[in-house]
Amino acid sequence: MTAPGKLYGVGLGPGNPELMTLKAHRLIANATTVAYPALAGGESFARRIAAGVIPAGAREIVMDVPMTPAREPAQAAYDKGAAEIAAVLEAGEDVVCLCEGDPFFYGSFMYLFARLSQRFEVEVVPGVTSVTACAAEAGMPLSARNERVTILPGPLPEEELRARVEGAESVVLMKVGRHLPKIRRVFDGLGLTHRATYVERATLPEQKVLPLSEAPETAPYFSMILLTKGADPWL
Amino acid sequence: MTAPGKLYGVGLGPGNPELMTLKAHRLIANATTVAYPALAGGESFARRIAAGVIPAGAREIVMDVPMTPAREPAQAAYDKGAAEIAAVLEAGEDVVCLCEGDPFFYGSFMYLFARLSQRFEVEVVPGVTSVTACAAEAGMPLSARNERVTILPGPLPEEELRARVEGAESVVLMKVGRHLPKIRRVFDGLGLTHRATYVERATLPEQKVLPLSEAPETAPYFSMILLTKGADPWL
Ligand SMILES: C[S@@+](CC[C@H](N)C(=O)[O-])C[C@H]1O[C@@H](n2cnc3c(N)ncnc32)[C@H](O)[C@@H]1O
Ligand SMILES: C[S@@+](CC[C@H](N)C(=O)[O-])C[C@H]1O[C@@H](n2cnc3c(N)ncnc32)[C@H](O)[C@@H]1O
Repeated sequence: MTAPGKLYGVGLGPGNPELMTLKAHRLIANATTVAYPALAGGESFARRIAAGVIPAGAREIVMDVPMTPAREPAQAAYDKGAAEIAAVLEAGEDVVCLCEGDPFFYGSFMYLFARLSQRFEVEVVPGVTSVTACAAEAGMPLSARNERVTILPGPLPEEELRARVEGAESVVLMKVGRHLPKIRRVFDGLGLTHRATYVERATLPEQKVLPLSEAPETAPYFSMILLTKGADPWL
Repeated sequence: MTAPGKLYGVGLGPGNPELMTLKAHRLIANATTVAYPALAGGESFARRIAAGVIPAGAREIVMDVPMTPAREPAQAAYDKGAAEIAAVLEAGEDVVCLCEGDPFFYGSFMYLFARLSQRFEVEVVPGVTSVTACAAEAGMPLSARNERVTILPGPLPEEELRARVEGAESVVLMKVGRHLPKIRRVFDGLGLTHRATYVERATLPEQKVLPLSEAPETAPYFSMILLTKGADPWL
């Protein structure tokens, strides 16, 4: 019997391929099978980041994840992907799963991890998250000394966002997209808009960094809002 | 007159040199001057991570940062470091500042950024933070879908920690060190200890990952506590 292969969940960083780690680069460059999610019918951002490193001839397992609020279609996509990956692992071959940013930070890799980590050896390779990439591109230090950082997903209800932003120090709003108007109302209502920055597609050629007050009407999925304390009295 | 050089604040990741980004590697390998903080009289963790990449013969600017709660000695160390860096930049040469983890996430690079970014071009290269590195090593997905993440520094007062941990979903406790007994009291009091994990020197050969209940009596500075939701009902 062949020993089963190992599953790697590999963070690729926020978009610029040079922000991949040396370890991610090595694992992808030597991969015989790569797996990645793609929005049903659309491009895979993870595959785009790794494109220059994936060996010609590597097997590719694509998980077409539907973008609906319903759970079952996405669950079915991960079930199917996990079964395909398991078949390769059982044949004794490793699989490198490509993950935009970091695999365990709002990443879909955790659905594969939940399905496969009991049966197979899994290694997670952390990556640069979009949070620190956006902070770097915006020139906004996120947190110093004893400051707190609160990370909130944009889909949360308006009332909850307001309550959580109000009591916070540094705030990171993920998954902005179509929630931008709601988020702007929250920041406006709290008088915080002038201290907030909008970042879209950080570290990619099409990146935008703007004061929140100048953010576009409609935001793409790959956008974020950062609020920090600004100039530090300590300095 | 020579054009001034550029200052790079380069994230090195959590400790394992292979978790450096390709960009960090390229910048350090080509550096003529590197700068980094060191605990007064002690080793520099940032320099240790980059040691294999720093070119022989590169000039090294060491900032000896005293570990006292008083502000003035640390401010003086960054003032002195900034002046030395400025002299190199003014002579037309670039300086690569080495930063453990990510430069803008509880990183001392922000003190150099505050002192030099008005006068010189500064580029921040994000790095893998200790947060996602600890989550990867612990096999603990940090956050999914609409979950919130709260990042808290261990030196906060016990009452404040209790209030903030109580209302939180995923919790990351940074700068644990000598605050471990206080943090354990908070988690015990809230009945959360069984769900929390202690991680020390993640991704280094001497790494420890333990249930919080089995954490050592005394924790080193490079340690963290993670609390996550655990098994996800969505899956
Ligand atoms: C499903 S989460 C994945 C996060 C990713 N795993 C990470 O570590 O950054 C997707 C969200 O991340 C943020 N994001 C990811 N890449 C980004 C980028 N290059 N620029 C701005 N935001 C980004 C956006 O808020 C987006 O809605
Ligand atoms: C001054 S902060 C620097 C954080 C760093 N800039 C980053 O991006 O992770 C130092 C704290 O980070 C955490 N830390 C850094 N490296 C770590 C590691 N390898 N393992 C565990 N915790 C670490 C510890 O909580 C430590 O007290």
